[in-house]
Amino acid sequence: MNVAVIGGYRCTKKVYRTAEECGRLIAREGWVLICGGGAGVMEGACKGAKEAGGMTVGILPGSSPEEGNRYLSVAIPTGVGCARNVFVVRSAHALIAVDGRYGTLSEIAFALNEQKPVYGVDTWKIKGVRRVPSPREAVARIKKLTRAQNLR
Amino acid sequence: MNVAVIGGYRCTKKVYRTAEECGRLIAREGWVLICGGGAGVMEGACKGAKEAGGMTVGILPGSSPEEGNRYLSVAIPTGVGCARNVFVVRSAHALIAVDGRYGTLSEIAFALNEQKPVYGVDTWKIKGVRRVPSPREAVARIKKLTRAQNLR
Amino acid sequence: MNVAVIGGYRCTKKVYRTAEECGRLIAREGWVLICGGGAGVMEGACKGAKEAGGMTVGILPGSSPEEGNRYLSVAIPTGVGCARNVFVVRSAHALIAVDGRYGTLSEIAFALNEQKPVYGVDTWKIKGVRRVPSPREAVARIKKLTRAQNLR
Amino acid sequence: MNVAVIGGYRCTKKVYRTAEECGRLIAREGWVLICGGGAGVMEGACKGAKEAGGMTVGILPGSSPEEGNRYLSVAIPTGVGCARNVFVVRSAHALIAVDGRYGTLSEIAFALNEQKPVYGVDTWKIKGVRRVPSPREAVARIKKLTRAQNLR
Repeated sequence: MNVAVIGGYRCTKKVYRTAEECGRLIAREGWVLICGGGAGVMEGACKGAKEAGGMTVGILPGSSPEEGNRYLSVAIPTGVGCARNVFVVRSAHALIAVDGRYGTLSEIAFALNEQKPVYGVDTWKIKGVRRVPSPREAVARIKKLTRAQNLR
Repeated sequence: MNVAVIGGYRCTKKVYRTAEECGRLIAREGWVLICGGGAGVMEGACKGAKEAGGMTVGILPGSSPEEGNRYLSVAIPTGVGCARNVFVVRSAHALIAVDGRYGTLSEIAFALNEQKPVYGVDTWKIKGVRRVPSPREAVARIKKLTRAQNLR
Repeated sequence: MNVAVIGGYRCTKKVYRTAEECGRLIAREGWVLICGGGAGVMEGACKGAKEAGGMTVGILPGSSPEEGNRYLSVAIPTGVGCARNVFVVRSAHALIAVDGRYGTLSEIAFALNEQKPVYGVDTWKIKGVRRVPSPREAVARIKKLTRAQNLR
Repeated sequence: MNVAVIGGYRCTKKVYRTAEECGRLIAREGWVLICGGGAGVMEGACKGAKEAGGMTVGILPGSSPEEGNRYLSVAIPTGVGCARNVFVVRSAHALIAVDGRYGTLSEIAFALNEQKPVYGVDTWKIKGVRRVPSPREAVARIKKLTRAQNLR
């Protein structure tokens, strides 16, 4: 089971902590954390997951495996720039969007286009995004969904 | 100078006619029409451009050059599915969004993320999209922009 | 009908002239020339095709429509670096390889992997490449193939 | 440190065992195994790595995280078909080619084009591939290289 946390590479400390909690809760479920591998929300999520003993995968925009944040278990450099957003979406069974700007919006759109569940914490208000008040609620709902679909 | 028309592969007759007008006006400026090469808004735009003597390029989701609509001068099959949306955006100097659903939203987001001008005719209301009442207005504003930037 | 000419961005004058002849003959058949849009063999082929009144498409490694050679009818910037080689292959019904190094080898391999006909003029000796003595012979054989398959 | 094992999705039992040994030795070094995630050589390498307690990443041609072989720690579905070969190459610091056909040749070409070290065990004879008699020798030489370059 892969869950992506999507959001901007720049964010406030508060948003960073929200991302961290997402990562922590994802790791505690035994799920793999997928993200774009960068700073900001991506780094926060990786930090949270890594410190909780989870596995973190960063699908990077650049060509070098060295450029990701320091909390990645695996770095997948793609060399395709922000087109890597598509692969973040494809790698995930479900996504949690936290804050974010246009890059995050492109991921939300791709995910909804491919009919993947997107949970939103203080992010773009787009029809189809399931708004939740907290990472805890997002993870609880993904867990429910997972059971219903019998995913590991 | 390449201008993309983006929108859904399914649309009403009215939207199809709006797309046709976009294509016609783009061709009359001597610009190349870029699109996703499919049905609906993409086909309408190609029909309009082709009938006005313009050049039309379809960047296709599938792997076969044969699958595009019948008004394409050139078909570029990519085999990457809706990730081809990124290439539609990258190939265009400016974009006109007509109607559309999540695929179109992903293109709008990518374009705004790469700071490309997006003109919207009855489409997603996203901050950054320059809303215009008609294809005529969209093309007039792209023309102005082009002159300012000295593009051919 | 799209035919790609593949080869290095650096080449001798002799190889450039061979590429030019490929382009010229492709244009005379009314086929669209597909290439990577760069210098060397790609430019030679575009020059030949353009001067013979043909249409030339460059699928570029970078993100800017401005970076291709000056003989392109249409520039398709991809922003994916040499991964664009895959799209050159996918866009073509048949390929002519002229000279070339590892980039060209990757295109030959992709083409053979997707079972597309590859004609080779002084290029890599790889099983599956149909070696021909001249552009004229390559185009003659593609023409024959086209008729057999009833492609336009 | 990421090392890719590349080779066909169909292979003999002997080749499968060679791939298994590659995976085992890679895991013992504490390196991450990167591969295309499929059957044949890819599966063999994953089996070897997984049984030795290593981490295995499969960069899949299709869109579903479920389609990889059963020895993957992480599945990265790309939905771009064999264009994913580019990402296998980009994710790896070094590659070991075992047997293989045109898909493998495309990976070898991409890797050499991006100046990555490729070690070959009974594979394509291409200038630039460093031929070695065994997985043991390939891993020994990658280790040496790693030390010289100070990679982890």
